[in-house]
Amino acid sequence: MIGVDWGTSSFRAVRLAVDGSVLARIEAPQGIMAVAEGGFAETLRAAIAPWLAAGERRVLLCGMVGSRQGWAEAAYLACPAGAEELAAALLPVAFGGAEVRIVPGLAATDADGVPEVMRGEETQVAGAAPLLPDARIACLPGTHSKWVRLEAGRIAGFATHLTGEAFAALRGHTILGRMMRAGDTDDAASRGAFDRGVVRSGEAGGLLHHLFGVRALALFGRLAEAEGASYLSGLLIGHEVRAALPKNAGVVPVIGEATLAALYARAIAACGGRAEWLAGEHAAAGLARIGGLASWN
Amino acid sequence: MIGVDWGTSSFRAVRLAVDGSVLARIEAPQGIMAVAEGGFAETLRAAIAPWLAAGERRVLLCGMVGSRQGWAEAAYLACPAGAEELAAALLPVAFGGAEVRIVPGLAATDADGVPEVMRGEETQVAGAAPLLPDARIACLPGTHSKWVRLEAGRIAGFATHLTGEAFAALRGHTILGRMMRAGDTDDAASRGAFDRGVVRSGEAGGLLHHLFGVRALALFGRLAEAEGASYLSGLLIGHEVRAALPKNAGVVPVIGEATLAALYARAIAACGGRAEWLAGEHAAAGLARIGGLASWN
Repeated sequence: MIGVDWGTSSFRAVRLAVDGSVLARIEAPQGIMAVAEGGFAETLRAAIAPWLAAGERRVLLCGMVGSRQGWAEAAYLACPAGAEELAAALLPVAFGGAEVRIVPGLAATDADGVPEVMRGEETQVAGAAPLLPDARIACLPGTHSKWVRLEAGRIAGFATHLTGEAFAALRGHTILGRMMRAGDTDDAASRGAFDRGVVRSGEAGGLLHHLFGVRALALFGRLAEAEGASYLSGLLIGHEVRAALPKNAGVVPVIGEATLAALYARAIAACGGRAEWLAGEHAAAGLARIGGLASWN
Repeated sequence: MIGVDWGTSSFRAVRLAVDGSVLARIEAPQGIMAVAEGGFAETLRAAIAPWLAAGERRVLLCGMVGSRQGWAEAAYLACPAGAEELAAALLPVAFGGAEVRIVPGLAATDADGVPEVMRGEETQVAGAAPLLPDARIACLPGTHSKWVRLEAGRIAGFATHLTGEAFAALRGHTILGRMMRAGDTDDAASRGAFDRGVVRSGEAGGLLHHLFGVRALALFGRLAEAEGASYLSGLLIGHEVRAALPKNAGVVPVIGEATLAALYARAIAACGGRAEWLAGEHAAAGLARIGGLASWN
């Protein structure tokens, strides 16, 4: 079958063997924002034409393609939900010559009754869950970071933090960015600045006070321009981790792109937790697993 | 004498009687960012020409005009400091035909040793302090809100929160703004949304989680587009107040523009405090008071 992780700004397709292994891979900059209304079937067909020509007849999509702005809106499934529940709730869309279905996103509410949503991460977690038989919580960093509560491999609930997007807005559109220039984010000085930001996130005064401190430290020469962005990143990720990390969480698997995952693992350790980056193609694995559980025509 | 509150984006001059009352007023859109390098004396002379012609010979400036980007850098004075200490530390600048001096800003450190700075607010507090004989803390809302600790009318220390600037960046440059349209910020619905944001700021999960909730509430039709900005404002101001308001603070005077001060007073009350908007021209009063204590030639 064919699996596609189709997000806001990217299109990542894999051709999958029956055992779920990846046979081939196509990436395109055709996220859903780049597709004209009514143009989803055509865009998909052009991207995966060689695989269709080779006889593939099943296509499973996940991500923002199932949102109101995507191909068709796949209603959020309520938590708790795992691969089985997702496989039973796929949304078929019209496509000549193959069966195309969309994995729905998940909805939950937090402890205070405020809604939560995800689209795409449920598939990554479905792919990673078999590797995590004992995990109670997993972290998926990103523009909108997700902290997922797991129960017997299913998603029992989750909480989202706007961390990545807040970082970009604060860096790009406040006075803080004026005191920063791009540095090598992988050198010792940047790691040191990131760690300082994480430590700061545990001090008194709250995030909005700590944000002004970024400017004041720079003003007094106590934060170099090349280190400002790393410090701000540590500050925000530190605030997220301190709010999201449960006590006695055990080892927290971090699922996502290697550089960001390494920063989260670093912050989790600094906040008293234990983290482990879970390498792998979790979206592809999740699509294979959900596709394997679905009943196709 | 003449007093000028000369900030980043505004120029507000007053002609003061010997008793400190305001005789006349000039406002211009000539904040320091609009003045060419070396052009401060000329800009000032043009703005206050009629008063100089009428015989005024003393001019006292406060605000960002004393920063590195202003006319001349007036080194920060260390806390504790009040009107007397400020009056003894004025920075003279060259100006033919009148004495012109700049009130220095203040510096402090927070409980964790991170620096704090203000320029302009020290003069407002010097003006308001005689009205506040018993206050232990005062709140000056704004782009960079200040919470000032008072001891016997002097500023013992202070903490800044980047609240106003964070609000603008998050509203203007994240997905949150796409779910908002301008509403009447003074109607009952907006006040209700502001109050909901303040309540939310006291719930579990932290600010970065609460920010994502703004989107999720809108997505599920639980937050109207016209109310989104007020809710976000309440959320951020609520987080600030909860972090900054000491227990048993007594009545907190709020010093600043009426609309914003009313929102802060509302949030302080919702967070268990008591607040009082302190109307008045505090910068002018502070300039008069500091000018009266200074020794002019």
